[in-house]
This record gives sequence, structure tokens and C-alpha cells, in this order.
Amino acid sequence: MAIEDRVRELAGSVEPLDERAGAAASARQEQLTKPAGSLGRLEALGTRLAAIAGRCPPPVPERPAVVVAAGDHGVLAQGVSPWPREVTATMAAGIATGHAAVNALAGVVGAQVVVLDVGVATPLPPHPMLRRARVRAGTGDLSEGPAMTRAEAARALLAGAGVAEELVGAGADLLVTGDMGIGNTTPAACLAAAFTGRPAGEVTGRGTGIDDATLELKVKVVQGALARHAPDPADPLGVLAALGGLEHAALAGLALAGAALRVPVVLDGVSANVAALAACRLAPLARGYLVAGHRSVEPGASAALAELELDPLVDLGMRLGEGTGALLAVPIVRAAAAALARMATFAEVGIGTGASS
Amino acid sequence: MAIEDRVRELAGSVEPLDERAGAAASARQEQLTKPAGSLGRLEALGTRLAAIAGRCPPPVPERPAVVVAAGDHGVLAQGVSPWPREVTATMAAGIATGHAAVNALAGVVGAQVVVLDVGVATPLPPHPMLRRARVRAGTGDLSEGPAMTRAEAARALLAGAGVAEELVGAGADLLVTGDMGIGNTTPAACLAAAFTGRPAGEVTGRGTGIDDATLELKVKVVQGALARHAPDPADPLGVLAALGGLEHAALAGLALAGAALRVPVVLDGVSANVAALAACRLAPLARGYLVAGHRSVEPGASAALAELELDPLVDLGMRLGEGTGALLAVPIVRAAAAALARMATFAEVGIGTGASS
Repeated sequence: MAIEDRVRELAGSVEPLDERAGAAASARQEQLTKPAGSLGRLEALGTRLAAIAGRCPPPVPERPAVVVAAGDHGVLAQGVSPWPREVTATMAAGIATGHAAVNALAGVVGAQVVVLDVGVATPLPPHPMLRRARVRAGTGDLSEGPAMTRAEAARALLAGAGVAEELVGAGADLLVTGDMGIGNTTPAACLAAAFTGRPAGEVTGRGTGIDDATLELKVKVVQGALARHAPDPADPLGVLAALGGLEHAALAGLALAGAALRVPVVLDGVSANVAALAACRLAPLARGYLVAGHRSVEPGASAALAELELDPLVDLGMRLGEGTGALLAVPIVRAAAAALARMATFAEVGIGTGASS
Repeated sequence: MAIEDRVRELAGSVEPLDERAGAAASARQEQLTKPAGSLGRLEALGTRLAAIAGRCPPPVPERPAVVVAAGDHGVLAQGVSPWPREVTATMAAGIATGHAAVNALAGVVGAQVVVLDVGVATPLPPHPMLRRARVRAGTGDLSEGPAMTRAEAARALLAGAGVAEELVGAGADLLVTGDMGIGNTTPAACLAAAFTGRPAGEVTGRGTGIDDATLELKVKVVQGALARHAPDPADPLGVLAALGGLEHAALAGLALAGAALRVPVVLDGVSANVAALAACRLAPLARGYLVAGHRSVEPGASAALAELELDPLVDLGMRLGEGTGALLAVPIVRAAAAALARMATFAEVGIGTGASS
């Protein structure tokens, strides 16, 4: 099968949410021993988890896995970040061996960490936690030409989907997106602009914390790339190929595969949010399986979440990536499911509801 | 020792934060393998955890305990809630036996749940998870007289402190506040008004979800009580006695004891927030040991947090109480500590910082 057909097949395998299970969960929320609506946003989240799983109460996720998609970026040559390219490989290796922020936070919430190399320029040493699916040694410079070919974007996407399938097959019941790639907030801004129609200045941010002059340059690079490639948002693979990062394509695939497997996917920051835009253009039904883990301070993140109409669970001013923000939302997802699964009903404890007493 | 002297002794035993450990943590944040500031509010929180513990990195809390202080309220006779008084006892017993919302969420974050009966009107059956320190069978009606005597407020406060001491003695390394008491958002609103100086209409909310007419009545009850008792915020025990609930006094004691023992105290919603106002009037140094777990939709909660200058970690539109909102913040507290304790430094992995490269 041609590789783009495989992407279409994956997108086509995403099924609608189970509205019957969702309705059952919604009704159960009213019977649990709490004032109606008092669990706030946990209630709608729990109801959606039931619709994702196709049963009420939904399972409480016990085995989350965070996939840190890693790649390098040709556009780094334009000076959009002060960090050298080699840091991607160093950090990716550090994540595989367990010493980065994502590992510290994954330990707190009991999540497995897997690094997916879809395009780190510097070859990485083998490690049990590393999946090697290096589509190319980093993207081309999107300010001078396409970041990659359509086939490469498709291969990166399918690599992300493949890891999701592997992890879910091995028992993972919640997927969390992560990313590592020096320079990757520049393609992320391009993707945010391409899919939301907003101008570069609205969706381009400081990434790791660049100064005013670098930000000005970065906005110009994004503007120039948008003008050069004239991306068509109705062709998400084309947008990813022209303007994206290999890790963005991989995370789009992860989101699609999670949705196809009816496993909730918790989105981290801007890289995940723009990947979700691509995924939902490929398969609009995928949106129902996505949970916005946190609000990154990167403006493209909020632009993408607004376009997706997803409201993040955590907002702590974070902008680290790697999956760190999304991991903080994992216990909230569990709590939403646990409330439905483990609370008694009024009838069980012999209390009438407030309205009737 | 006279009972009020015991309260003063407890308050006097709270020591300043360890600024040296805090400074070490702050410096360490700059050396960890992440862009400076990229963990957002986790960084300041981690630094404060170091200052609380007196060492850097701070310990990662492994054994949180949520104390659900329960009591009844004479003011319920004024019709401020549609729920009957007996629900307090039913729910307190349900929490002790593990079937309420707080248990579901405590299970998710690995927290122990203890119910502290400081004044449930209906006697509760014994249970290993129940501590009985019933100061009186519910408060008096604060709209007609003082809710309790100063000595009773002091006894409830010391009961809360006693449970904190017991739990920390047995290994708890993070205290979480919880509450159960039908009608308790009316005294909470009174305490919020008394300690912040705001008018009743600004700090009185819908509690479990009362209708407009009941809310109007509730505001009038709060207004009347404030006019009758003319509380002096400089006399926190007097304010608690006149206008509080037994569980508010207990949670103030819990907060003071946690601070005195250098254990972080995660605050739940409005009951905890107003209890913290009382605690910090008794011992201003206690504030440094308090973590605002979440923002309850109850307006008195935000008023109290603003007065305390504490910014909540989670904001999900919750208003259930029991400790549910605070429990969602427990993994965030752990994450803040874990980042300091378990991440590698740039020097360890051989990367220069972004600024210098």
C-alpha cells in the first residue's frame, strides 16, 4: 500500500465516541454522593472517558505511557534558538536513561517513558527505552524549502502511530505526548499559523526563552515560510511536510492511533497541540479522544487549543515540553475516572438528593 | 496550662522558612537540564518545599494524609442549605468506610484518609479511620448567638493539631485538608468576611448549589451575624468562636501543627482557606507552609486566597469539599520536589546553558 494510503487508512479507522456510554456516565454523575456538578470539570472529563472507553464507569488508567518524539530542525540555521543542535541528541539520550524533567514527573505519576527518534541528526546510542525510526537526520530548512517530503512526513506519522500501537498492545491505557527538538517551536508556530489562519506574530513565542531580537527574527522566519509554502490546511500531510518537524508528524500519528485504539491521549504543549491540529484535519473524530493536559505559555499552544476547542486541565506557566505539562494532568484524568468508578451513589448510602430533601 | 495558652504555644512554635535551603533550591533550578524558568510555577513551589523542609533538594512527599474535619452547624436552622443535618454523619461515615469522592481521589494520589469528628451532631460508629474529638454536638446558631465558646474553638483547633501530630508522627509527609459539614459554607463566608473585611455579598456563595432565593437569605444571615458579633480579626480565636464551624477551627489547628512540624499543608476549598486565614492571624509564619491546592468556585475561597496571597495550583470549577480539590494538587507538589531531587544538571550531562552557547 502506498504510504499516504496507510495514513488515510489509519485516519479512517478512528470511530465516533460511544454516546451511549457517555450518556450513562452523565446520568451516573447525578447519582453519586456529591452535590450535582460539584466536581466541576472532572465530571465532563469522566463522562468523556466513558465515551472513549465505550463503558460506564470508564476504566481508571493505571499504565500511562509518555512518548517523547525527538527530531532536529534545519531551520535552526536561521538562528531561531540559542541552543546548539547537538542538545537534542544529548537530551534525548538523557531522557532514555531517565535523568530529565520528563522522567522526574513520569516517576511521580507512574508513567513509562519511551523516546521515539524520528529524526535526531546525531545518531543516538541504543537503549531499551529508545525506539529508532529515524526518517531522516533532521528536517530541511523550512525557510528555504520544504522541511521534508510528503512520504517522509507520512513515515514519521506512522512511526508515532506504531509506537502507540506497540505500547497499547503491551498494556498502556493512557498515552501522553512528549517532544524534544532544539528549534521545534519554529515549525510549531508555522503549523499553528497554517492550521488556524492566524498571523505569525500571534502564534510565535519565545520557546526556551529567546530575547526580543531573536523573537523578531523568528517571527520573520515564520512569516517568510508561510509566504513561501502557502500551506493548504485541507492537506494536513502537505502542511506537515512543508513546515513541520518530524516529531510533530509523529505526534499526529500517536494521536490518531490512540484515538483508533480508543485510548485517551493527553496532549502536552505547543508541539502536541499543533500535531493535534494535523491529526484532527486527517480525522476529525480524533478530537474526542484528546485531552488537553496543560496550557503552555507558548502562544501557538493557546491558538491551537482554541481551534480544537479543548480547554487545558493545568495552567502553571510551563514551557519545557518533553511531556512535562501533560504528565501533571494524568492524575486528574485518573481522578475523573475514579469518581465514576469508585464513589457510592445516594441510593447506596440512603441519602435523598439535595433537591428532593 | 489554660487551653488558650496551648493554642498560643502551638502558634509560637511555628518557625520561619529556611531561607538558606530555599536559596540553594533557587540556584539549583538554574542548573537543571531545562531552559531557565521553563517549569513555571513548579520552580517556585519546589524552592518553597526546600525552604519548608530545610534542605535542598526537598524530600518528595510519599505519604500524604488528608484529614476530613467534620462538624454540624446550628445555623442550618435558618434554611441556608437544602440538605438535612443528618447528611453530615452519613457522609462522614461514608468517608471513613471509603466510598466518597475524597476516597476515590485519595486512592488516585496514594493518600491516607482520616475523618476527624470535631462536632457531628449524630454520633458516628467507631471506625479505624475515624478520630473522635467531638467538642460539642454541632455549633450553636451563629445568627442568634456565638457558634461556640472560645474554649470550644480552642479545643477543636487543638484536636486538628493533634491529628496532624499523630499522622506526621506515623510518617505522613504531606498534610491535606478536607471538610464535611452540611451548612458549613455559611460560617465560612462569615469567617471570610471577618478576616478580609469584605462585605457578605462578596464572600457568600451557593455552597452545594442553592437557588437564588436561598442565596439571598444566606447573604442576609451572614450580614446579620457580622453585625451582631462585630468580629475583631486581630482576635482569631474570638472570630472562630463567634462565627466559625468546629471543622474550621480544627483545620486552623491542622495548618498550625503542619507548619510547626515543617510539613507542607495543602489547602482544599473555602473551609480550608478561611481556616488558613485564622491560622495565619494566630501565626503569620504559618503562611509559608501552606500550599493552595485549588480554587473553589465559592467566592469566599478566592477572597481568602487573595488575602493570603496564595495562588492555587488547580482550577477546575470544583466545589465539593472533602479535600477533593487539594488532592489533585498533591502530584503537582510531588512533581515540584521531584524536579529538584531527580533531574540531572547541565554539568552532569555536559551541556552549556543556552545563554552561554
